[in-house]
Amino acid sequence: MQTETETLTQQIAALRSGAISSTFLAERALDRAVRFKTLNAFVALEPAHVMSQAKAADVRRTQGRALSVLDGIPIAIKDNYLTQDYPTTACSGALPLEPAGTDATIVANLRGAGAVIFGKTNMHEWAYGATNSTSSFGPTRNPHNPDHITGGSSGGSGAAVAAGIVAAALGSDTGGSVRIPAGACGIYGFKPSYGRASRHGILPLSWSLDAPGPMAAALEDLRHLLPLFCGADTKDPATRHAMPFDDTVSMSRPKLIHLTGEGLERSTEVDTAIRFALSRCDGDVAVAGLSNVASYFAAWEAILHCEASAYHAPLLARNAAGYSAVTRAHLEAGKLLSGVDLLKAQQIRADLVRQLADLGNWDALVLPTLPVVAPRAGEEWHEFGGRRVTTQDSMTWFCWIGNLAGFPCISIPIGMSPDGLPIGMMLMGRPNADEHLLAVAGWIDKNLRASN
Amino acid sequence: MQTETETLTQQIAALRSGAISSTFLAERALDRAVRFKTLNAFVALEPAHVMSQAKAADVRRTQGRALSVLDGIPIAIKDNYLTQDYPTTACSGALPLEPAGTDATIVANLRGAGAVIFGKTNMHEWAYGATNSTSSFGPTRNPHNPDHITGGSSGGSGAAVAAGIVAAALGSDTGGSVRIPAGACGIYGFKPSYGRASRHGILPLSWSLDAPGPMAAALEDLRHLLPLFCGADTKDPATRHAMPFDDTVSMSRPKLIHLTGEGLERSTEVDTAIRFALSRCDGDVAVAGLSNVASYFAAWEAILHCEASAYHAPLLARNAAGYSAVTRAHLEAGKLLSGVDLLKAQQIRADLVRQLADLGNWDALVLPTLPVVAPRAGEEWHEFGGRRVTTQDSMTWFCWIGNLAGFPCISIPIGMSPDGLPIGMMLMGRPNADEHLLAVAGWIDKNLRASN
Repeated sequence: MQTETETLTQQIAALRSGAISSTFLAERALDRAVRFKTLNAFVALEPAHVMSQAKAADVRRTQGRALSVLDGIPIAIKDNYLTQDYPTTACSGALPLEPAGTDATIVANLRGAGAVIFGKTNMHEWAYGATNSTSSFGPTRNPHNPDHITGGSSGGSGAAVAAGIVAAALGSDTGGSVRIPAGACGIYGFKPSYGRASRHGILPLSWSLDAPGPMAAALEDLRHLLPLFCGADTKDPATRHAMPFDDTVSMSRPKLIHLTGEGLERSTEVDTAIRFALSRCDGDVAVAGLSNVASYFAAWEAILHCEASAYHAPLLARNAAGYSAVTRAHLEAGKLLSGVDLLKAQQIRADLVRQLADLGNWDALVLPTLPVVAPRAGEEWHEFGGRRVTTQDSMTWFCWIGNLAGFPCISIPIGMSPDGLPIGMMLMGRPNADEHLLAVAGWIDKNLRASN
Repeated sequence: MQTETETLTQQIAALRSGAISSTFLAERALDRAVRFKTLNAFVALEPAHVMSQAKAADVRRTQGRALSVLDGIPIAIKDNYLTQDYPTTACSGALPLEPAGTDATIVANLRGAGAVIFGKTNMHEWAYGATNSTSSFGPTRNPHNPDHITGGSSGGSGAAVAAGIVAAALGSDTGGSVRIPAGACGIYGFKPSYGRASRHGILPLSWSLDAPGPMAAALEDLRHLLPLFCGADTKDPATRHAMPFDDTVSMSRPKLIHLTGEGLERSTEVDTAIRFALSRCDGDVAVAGLSNVASYFAAWEAILHCEASAYHAPLLARNAAGYSAVTRAHLEAGKLLSGVDLLKAQQIRADLVRQLADLGNWDALVLPTLPVVAPRAGEEWHEFGGRRVTTQDSMTWFCWIGNLAGFPCISIPIGMSPDGLPIGMMLMGRPNADEHLLAVAGWIDKNLRASN
């Protein structure tokens, strides 16, 4: 699929050399959006608006006034980023279908770089779930097999990139929502460190866990996107000390720790793929366990539910009928947690950060992105490692660790299952060492591709 | 009272010149502790231990090996600072009467500077109240009039300094617990910025509000003490970015804003004293109101109760009978707040910080320390500005603002009421500009003394 089209990096080169035009890219993207309509990746897409952006980009480039290397490249936006031109609904019936008239900071950065704001992608309602099965626009389907889910909550962005409609898309990640669909759809997804990238203008799920992140078909593409994400934004106080992205960091033979053991179980299929990839990538690989995974997971859930309930309280009071029943139930449940529970969760969170730091001298921690391949739509349970786990929990199974710790994470595709579904590897870096993590991932990715 | 003895700064000079010895200071302090025993300022005091520390200090000084200018000076410690030599009970029956065998960071700093760790001072049980009327050792009495309370929770430290037993003492402050007894007892008390001074080894009340602070009989004394408080301590993560105290900052004709209006009412007696002091100190004084004081106060209370309940949960489960009924009731009440309530409180807190910053260009915000003079013991209600307020609430009436905002604060004595009870002025500085605040206070204090 995505191999039929160019990667973002290839598009940049082809636009620069004049081999293709922005108009060509936009037309083809619109064609492919029609061709892959059954994936249900887009919830708002205006061909005329796309074409007018593309034509303006071609004019700029012809006149030598390209705004950046990204000028004229179509990029899709998850439907929880505010966009001045498209409505923003978080795929919930609770919000109006009208443009908010303002851009999220990252959308504004993209627009300022000349990117074509291509359309809004389907997502799990309010990002409050990791399957993309609950959406006011209906579920998304996996480009590798439409009977399977994309994972979520940035499932539409994952499907749009994996289907080669666009080369890159924006996602957001509170417990894996960038990495899960990246893993399930066989693309790359990066969740920056907490506080490294602005959330201004992105509808929050849980403000102490949320991070926005790019999704793309090639690792090198992320290097073009992360500078538009990283850095201080006065409109998001959490980014007060955020540094711009530094693309000069490089890395060879990183120290990796593969996390395994209780609470970190995975299917044999996935475990074999990860171990095989680690053996091929010539890394310095150690193995370690993580204590108290169950209590960390409970802390992540408590913080998520409390913060989501606090954020949604006014809208839920005004328009409860606009929410799906399952999201409403989550939000009601969040109200039942006590302040003491929440404070304990915040303390447990600090303990996780200490435990990860104390694992020693590592460049990245390694886990599968998902313990299973992308589930079949409607599949409710998964059994692996002696566990019986819901589809929702199997999607966030490993990913929430990065949000609770606030560490940067990336999902990279490492191969396909015998059934033709992608398997992803997740790498977790040290806080605010996003560049370092990308370099580690680049080194692994290069070695894996070379050994193919 | 304190005028019968030297200030800390005078003791430093007299020890340095050889005019007095540490042994003399220690003996006189012990004598005065006996003379003022009815104040109930001390809950642990070992004369032999005090004398042996003083003798060792004299030996060091004679041999030219004085550890610092504070070497040999008796300093009293609030009973919630862990001390290797004295028990630490927080004046609650819930903790054993045995030394913990370890020093709080600030106690260790004092001991390292050669100060004589003089004894432990009475406090409001667990610092969970501002009157010092609830203590397993009984209430403290105000040196200016023993029928009146000292305020708290560092009431023993306030009484010990005001009675001239010691020149300086340590307190801690979650809603005014350094400034309240400083104001009520007519001495100086400084609460550093949140995260500027280590709480390691101090029994917490509410970890996001707590700050340790020095109390002394003269403003210049604080300059000798704050360097032992301020700076990073790996054992208190909140101090990660804390700078050491910089005593080179000076100030003239500061821009002051006197905060008045709804929610900031005070008795006519106190208001007159503050306005008179401001008129005499030749400051550049503006007046402003503060919106939403009631909701900020509710946020402070919610955070305080939740954090205290979370901290005390294990000990309360093990030894409920060790707590006073009123403290137990607070701790039970804290459990009833929801996580959503707590998150709302944390958001309201951020709004207070913005409002104070947006008041414009100011060097210090001015309030009375207390809306009334030190209440008579047993007095339950106070009427001022059309309000009817409990003694507890009248003690924290203005002070909690500094804790909720995390700003540095100081209380300085500005005069006496017709009844012979002290009146204090509170100054609030910008976060981490503790030196600047001390300089503002020094300038006001100097001008007030000069005009006397």
